[in-house]
Amino acid sequence: MVEKYHDESLKIFSLNGNVPLAEKIAKEFGTKLGKCAIKKFSDGEIAISIEESVRGAHIYIIQSTNQPVNDYYMELMIMIDAMKRASAKTINVVLPYYAYARQDRTAKPHEPITAKLIANMLVEAGATRVLTLDLHAVQVQGFFDIPVDNLFTIPLFANYYQNKGMEGDDYVVVSPKNSGVGRSRSLAEYLNTTLAIVDQDESLEDGGYVIGDVAGKTCIMVDDILNTGHTFAEAARLLKEEGATNVYACCSHALLSPPAREVLNDAPIEDICVTDSCLTDETRHPDKLTYITCSKLMGEAVKRIHENTPMSPLFKLSEEKYL
Amino acid sequence: MVEKYHDESLKIFSLNGNVPLAEKIAKEFGTKLGKCAIKKFSDGEIAISIEESVRGAHIYIIQSTNQPVNDYYMELMIMIDAMKRASAKTINVVLPYYAYARQDRTAKPHEPITAKLIANMLVEAGATRVLTLDLHAVQVQGFFDIPVDNLFTIPLFANYYQNKGMEGDDYVVVSPKNSGVGRSRSLAEYLNTTLAIVDQDESLEDGGYVIGDVAGKTCIMVDDILNTGHTFAEAARLLKEEGATNVYACCSHALLSPPAREVLNDAPIEDICVTDSCLTDETRHPDKLTYITCSKLMGEAVKRIHENTPMSPLFKLSEEKYL
Amino acid sequence: MVEKYHDESLKIFSLNGNVPLAEKIAKEFGTKLGKCAIKKFSDGEIAISIEESVRGAHIYIIQSTNQPVNDYYMELMIMIDAMKRASAKTINVVLPYYAYARQDRTAKPHEPITAKLIANMLVEAGATRVLTLDLHAVQVQGFFDIPVDNLFTIPLFANYYQNKGMEGDDYVVVSPKNSGVGRSRSLAEYLNTTLAIVDQDESLEDGGYVIGDVAGKTCIMVDDILNTGHTFAEAARLLKEEGATNVYACCSHALLSPPAREVLNDAPIEDICVTDSCLTDETRHPDKLTYITCSKLMGEAVKRIHENTPMSPLFKLSEEKYL
Amino acid sequence: MVEKYHDESLKIFSLNGNVPLAEKIAKEFGTKLGKCAIKKFSDGEIAISIEESVRGAHIYIIQSTNQPVNDYYMELMIMIDAMKRASAKTINVVLPYYAYARQDRTAKPHEPITAKLIANMLVEAGATRVLTLDLHAVQVQGFFDIPVDNLFTIPLFANYYQNKGMEGDDYVVVSPKNSGVGRSRSLAEYLNTTLAIVDQDESLEDGGYVIGDVAGKTCIMVDDILNTGHTFAEAARLLKEEGATNVYACCSHALLSPPAREVLNDAPIEDICVTDSCLTDETRHPDKLTYITCSKLMGEAVKRIHENTPMSPLFKLSEEKYL
Amino acid sequence: MVEKYHDESLKIFSLNGNVPLAEKIAKEFGTKLGKCAIKKFSDGEIAISIEESVRGAHIYIIQSTNQPVNDYYMELMIMIDAMKRASAKTINVVLPYYAYARQDRTAKPHEPITAKLIANMLVEAGATRVLTLDLHAVQVQGFFDIPVDNLFTIPLFANYYQNKGMEGDDYVVVSPKNSGVGRSRSLAEYLNTTLAIVDQDESLEDGGYVIGDVAGKTCIMVDDILNTGHTFAEAARLLKEEGATNVYACCSHALLSPPAREVLNDAPIEDICVTDSCLTDETRHPDKLTYITCSKLMGEAVKRIHENTPMSPLFKLSEEKYL
Amino acid sequence: MVEKYHDESLKIFSLNGNVPLAEKIAKEFGTKLGKCAIKKFSDGEIAISIEESVRGAHIYIIQSTNQPVNDYYMELMIMIDAMKRASAKTINVVLPYYAYARQDRTAKPHEPITAKLIANMLVEAGATRVLTLDLHAVQVQGFFDIPVDNLFTIPLFANYYQNKGMEGDDYVVVSPKNSGVGRSRSLAEYLNTTLAIVDQDESLEDGGYVIGDVAGKTCIMVDDILNTGHTFAEAARLLKEEGATNVYACCSHALLSPPAREVLNDAPIEDICVTDSCLTDETRHPDKLTYITCSKLMGEAVKRIHENTPMSPLFKLSEEKYL
Repeated sequence: MVEKYHDESLKIFSLNGNVPLAEKIAKEFGTKLGKCAIKKFSDGEIAISIEESVRGAHIYIIQSTNQPVNDYYMELMIMIDAMKRASAKTINVVLPYYAYARQDRTAKPHEPITAKLIANMLVEAGATRVLTLDLHAVQVQGFFDIPVDNLFTIPLFANYYQNKGMEGDDYVVVSPKNSGVGRSRSLAEYLNTTLAIVDQDESLEDGGYVIGDVAGKTCIMVDDILNTGHTFAEAARLLKEEGATNVYACCSHALLSPPAREVLNDAPIEDICVTDSCLTDETRHPDKLTYITCSKLMGEAVKRIHENTPMSPLFKLSEEKYL
Repeated sequence: MVEKYHDESLKIFSLNGNVPLAEKIAKEFGTKLGKCAIKKFSDGEIAISIEESVRGAHIYIIQSTNQPVNDYYMELMIMIDAMKRASAKTINVVLPYYAYARQDRTAKPHEPITAKLIANMLVEAGATRVLTLDLHAVQVQGFFDIPVDNLFTIPLFANYYQNKGMEGDDYVVVSPKNSGVGRSRSLAEYLNTTLAIVDQDESLEDGGYVIGDVAGKTCIMVDDILNTGHTFAEAARLLKEEGATNVYACCSHALLSPPAREVLNDAPIEDICVTDSCLTDETRHPDKLTYITCSKLMGEAVKRIHENTPMSPLFKLSEEKYL
Repeated sequence: MVEKYHDESLKIFSLNGNVPLAEKIAKEFGTKLGKCAIKKFSDGEIAISIEESVRGAHIYIIQSTNQPVNDYYMELMIMIDAMKRASAKTINVVLPYYAYARQDRTAKPHEPITAKLIANMLVEAGATRVLTLDLHAVQVQGFFDIPVDNLFTIPLFANYYQNKGMEGDDYVVVSPKNSGVGRSRSLAEYLNTTLAIVDQDESLEDGGYVIGDVAGKTCIMVDDILNTGHTFAEAARLLKEEGATNVYACCSHALLSPPAREVLNDAPIEDICVTDSCLTDETRHPDKLTYITCSKLMGEAVKRIHENTPMSPLFKLSEEKYL
Repeated sequence: MVEKYHDESLKIFSLNGNVPLAEKIAKEFGTKLGKCAIKKFSDGEIAISIEESVRGAHIYIIQSTNQPVNDYYMELMIMIDAMKRASAKTINVVLPYYAYARQDRTAKPHEPITAKLIANMLVEAGATRVLTLDLHAVQVQGFFDIPVDNLFTIPLFANYYQNKGMEGDDYVVVSPKNSGVGRSRSLAEYLNTTLAIVDQDESLEDGGYVIGDVAGKTCIMVDDILNTGHTFAEAARLLKEEGATNVYACCSHALLSPPAREVLNDAPIEDICVTDSCLTDETRHPDKLTYITCSKLMGEAVKRIHENTPMSPLFKLSEEKYL
Repeated sequence: MVEKYHDESLKIFSLNGNVPLAEKIAKEFGTKLGKCAIKKFSDGEIAISIEESVRGAHIYIIQSTNQPVNDYYMELMIMIDAMKRASAKTINVVLPYYAYARQDRTAKPHEPITAKLIANMLVEAGATRVLTLDLHAVQVQGFFDIPVDNLFTIPLFANYYQNKGMEGDDYVVVSPKNSGVGRSRSLAEYLNTTLAIVDQDESLEDGGYVIGDVAGKTCIMVDDILNTGHTFAEAARLLKEEGATNVYACCSHALLSPPAREVLNDAPIEDICVTDSCLTDETRHPDKLTYITCSKLMGEAVKRIHENTPMSPLFKLSEEKYL
Repeated sequence: MVEKYHDESLKIFSLNGNVPLAEKIAKEFGTKLGKCAIKKFSDGEIAISIEESVRGAHIYIIQSTNQPVNDYYMELMIMIDAMKRASAKTINVVLPYYAYARQDRTAKPHEPITAKLIANMLVEAGATRVLTLDLHAVQVQGFFDIPVDNLFTIPLFANYYQNKGMEGDDYVVVSPKNSGVGRSRSLAEYLNTTLAIVDQDESLEDGGYVIGDVAGKTCIMVDDILNTGHTFAEAARLLKEEGATNVYACCSHALLSPPAREVLNDAPIEDICVTDSCLTDETRHPDKLTYITCSKLMGEAVKRIHENTPMSPLFKLSEEKYL
């Protein structure tokens, strides 16, 4: 059992995005969440009142920003503003899921870079540091000039599959699309095996094709965001057509927007492993969904930030203790 | 009929907040709204794509921010970011209703000043000027260091009542609460009459009392924001108890959050005059609601900003042409 | 007797605005004012030299900015700059009176918002926090993005009148003008009584009229700034005309610019209670002036800022100890 | 023959990075490069003097930042500072090659994000817009809040290979490493064929392996930066081992740092196509090197920026005129 | 006679510092000063109202900041703020005399750098450009990141002495103190002669001594600021002791703080030539004072800024037309 | 022997500019330099990796910026960026030599102010304080709004000459050029003697002339930067022509760019005393060069910054302990 954390200058607050995860992180410290009232008026405006003194304290605000994303971001901005005016010493924003991270460039002229806008808004509001998990593109770190720690989920998934004995040449790690190959590469390294890639696109014949050899192997697909499930479902279908024995999938952020449940229940996927970075209603969950928690990893990161101890061990994770 | 506006460097865009008002404002110019696609993904993220070149243009973005307020503000921030990156020359934000304006100070310690947060976010995103209507507190202008024009609605209401012959000693202008008395004072001046005030508060006996003499007179209540209607309804009841003959009401921003329809239908109010600064579903409208448009006033302001002609005549309005 | 304050990282400095008040505040800590030399050259330039080390210290600079307001503000900006370059850890500006606060909006087009300019200049110079007293409009807090504590004087005045037994239905609290009604409302609550308002304006017949019932009652007028005394004097005259028995007045900031002494001596006011936020020459004081000190309140606020204890008790003041 | 450009408010300057390219871009306008003296003192300090008036002009500064990269960046920062102080109206930085772009994230804790540092320095110095070519990661656009146009080279290479008849199923486009697959995907689309990937890493057996089928096909490798040539050489060897008939390569930025000449001369590559974004000494060039120019593309982009016409056609390039 | 200036987008305003000079500068354009009301309230606060539209205009605000320096600077800051909020396109501050420029470094630890504070305040308020005259130290230009033009007065003085035939070996240019020698060096070059220096300091025997040979020569002393006259008076005495035949003096900024009149009347100086950059009361003027105007030079500079023509000819002044 | 420094929150790092000096400074603390890897890639890009945790630490980065100046400045900027992102608490830049400091103003229109650009870049990168030595112009301090300590070398040189008995009337301190006379003045004060000045310029007959009396005296020339040695050599020649017995020279920053060695060996100078602020190859050193160290002075300054004790004693140096 974790003992009560000794340093009262640290206070952890949760907004509405993912309270269960926030409670788990706080529990890692043997502490409780700070008190604050978040009210929504009849006209839709949010009002926040912090119900304990934060003057001079180091504040960690935990907020996941999956649906309703705009309400959750506004909650966060307002909370940061309140903390700043109430004289918090540092304001550390913990974003297990950083929404809008995919809008990280102008795909066509005349488009916004919303991931940068979010970064600017967080800093303008008063954030002094960000802790996040498996950013869609690591370059988003550079959208900030305050320190940003981007924790990786691949060690968590590697641990999950290793515990099932799923490593070596009978397995192949698959990127279900032609971008974000780095995540698959990293998992392949942990599982001592090779890579394949599914090149998906509406313009392609049959919707895509498999690059690399998967016949007679068990495939483990890796992605960062699981939204409607179409990417995984389509890739699984193509892998099976190329002779894959079984298909597994893992993904950091489970948004599970409808019709994800139906799409994934219908897909030839044995098991989908996701973290609890996003909180969603159970009615959205497909049958073969397994949750693993990122709370130990994030809690340890909060502790290291607060105690000024190095963050680097969290990026190695040869030991199981943070998994 | 208004002719096509001659200057192609001006482009007016509307977001989803109040398209009918935006179209009326554009029509004042004999121009059409610019083309842009606003999409909401299945996970709730907003994506905006501007579908015509804005390079070097003077852009006016019209957005009302009543419910769903956070979505509408995020639309606005994203649009501004897109305009900035697409090289608009100036980005003029037109906010017929500035949501969160009531959160303009820390009422208690540990509270945010959300109206300032919104101001900071607009400027950070790239806004170069703001045009708004009847700010809850005029001091919010000072939350910005870019030019802000705050148009007044009182001349519109004065014109409305003068056309009905409602002026002089038989009438009294009433502030339905003990703040924002300036608006009532201004209308009283236009209607050549005096003021009364309703001091409302839960802590007061009978919920409040009337300051000033209203017996045998027709009262015209003035407020800036009409949300659930309780303020007006309660004030009307107290005025009637003090012997008021009839009670009218006018208000700049008609949010009409439920149960406003029921509350106002039950209140002893003859007629409620509001502007079209906010767009709401008809099912929310009480029976005795009269809309007057602010589109001429706002359109003229846009024109004066664009043509660098003085704004001051809009604050006098002795002539009817902008009403 | 207050003991010597134990924490040497706190240093309080006073500029020329109100040294007696600064000394009282320092005395609340059992400490002395820091040493600095403020010199005015023959050409009018101010030179400041801090005569002790402030490296790493938490600095509180006390400056009232009544007349000569521009010299006092420049002293303040120069002092902040010096503190910043001499490596003070935090620079807390204590402004018992915030001059230019009334210029908080553009009353007409083509006007500055000088209260915001002052806010920007303070922050630009290096201020990290502001402590002030009864701002003309509470929204001025939002002109800053650094923490601002705005202390209220109404509890001080409530205490003053309660000690005289002046509460209940025989009294009425009066706002001598149609703005700033909130202050009167707050005092009325403390004194368990109701409100009246004097609507003053040159354009009105007889210079104004009284809203609400004052006949046979003792009136207590409340305002924030007492400059030439005309507002109080005129309101008192109108109240007497409406049958008020006696008229008292209280006001936070006593500027007392000539001809305030003569105007107030001639007015039918029994007693004028003000705080010592501004220091003025005795020749400016009317005969019936009573000073109460804000030094305990401000000293306690400085202590709470420095010790990171909550500020909220100072806004309740049910106890007399800070009065 | 291009006529003299009509608009004298546009001035193009070149620093020392790549004068021949700058001259070609200027020639696209029928204009000459602006006059400036760049001096290096005996102590290594750079001094720049602009030798014509730039007051009120729109300035385009062309600088490639290959070796000596730090000198070239410092030249650029100093030039921007000079332009800002000499009252240029806009300062448009044209970076055919954006050095340090690969340092776009903290690969390990305790590392800088130098690509962001460069972005911040450019903006701090006074740049108002950036035009660049094939950024290592498109997310670097989001490191800026000023408009950034990132031109693509893939259409140039597609045109090169199409002119040689190299398209269809006999060809396969290869990413020589497991990142940056998007570039290969884009070229494959232009050439109507599929993808393969070489997964290279020192830790892998035989230094890497090929994902996808290349036997009996002609491979076209695509990369953004060609430094020492090892990535291309090693990938070519692995492709040949897997039965590739021929191997071609193309790359946007030819740094060609030693021993690139030897490495590439020894590699089984038929032809290496690069753009002239970087200028290097001929002694560094391998034998089978083909230069194509990006000057038409960049010149047209400058023209469109200056004339406020849409940039979007440059991203389609179905026509040959900008190739 | 100068014709009316053709470009209505330029507007020149004067504050209270030096209206006669501002009028002369405006006259150089054939234009009149813009209308604005500067009011000082009874409590010392300044209120400014611009009485014509400045929307979209290029504004030049002329203000000298000699005594009362703090009032004049505050006037300037408030005016800039008003111009910014009234949507001036550019705000060009014309400071014939930049007060506080001598406080340009921390002479001792714990001192401010007030000249930088002023620079920061001007920019924060909204100034987009500064035009000034003979800064105490040229490095103050670098306190700004907006364009600053610092005009020189030495050509004006050179012209004055050349017209009197005062050049060549019979004359020696003298720096009356051991700093600011550059000014003397420049005048010496114009007058084809050599330099001498007076090393003054209280710690020195006899208050100082002359470096260089002045016996039998006419000395022309040069300085930038003439405050109490002691520097000139003391230097003249020492020069006479060393055998100087006659002593003349010239100085850019004539503050003439008492007892300058008496000190200079008593000193062995034939003639003191100063510019009209500062306006002072005639009772402060010593008998042998000659004013030359800087209005042509400054007016021409304003014109060149506005018309985007090169400023460089103003720094040569081989022609008399700007003198 | 200095003991190990007790406070582990202080860490000193050195970049490549002057490692021996950095080691001496660290030794003053009984501490060692922090670990970091500075790599230069084959394409000239610098990569830095900090090899120990700096989270929450007070970091001092020592870098001299003599040749190769641009590489050394880029190293510094990258290191600051890395420290900021690795969460250092404060980042104190120690610049024994501040290159580009001579470019502190626009000598002609159209020139940069590179010394300001460097200041802006340091602050933008994340520096929170600067410690430097004998800035070319003290006004460069004002280019920063963060605290800057500029240590003086004159006490070091005074001590050097006093130890040789070189003071009093037989000696004269000479400024070898007509600017920077303050340094000579200060040394003269320490050595109880007077000043002379060499007015050098190509335009002058014989290249210059001596102001003041040097015949029969030993001259001690003082300058801040010794680059090619021409200024000293030419001044020595002129002083000898005027009858100086012997000529000595001292200078803070010994860049010694070729052909300094030859120029100075040929010049009639007895001894040249310089500090070790810059590190150069021995082949550049003239024969009569004496190094004195600034490491005690700078180390003591670092200590005082870190311990928040006053810096002022370092500017007096009546004691020898920091020399």
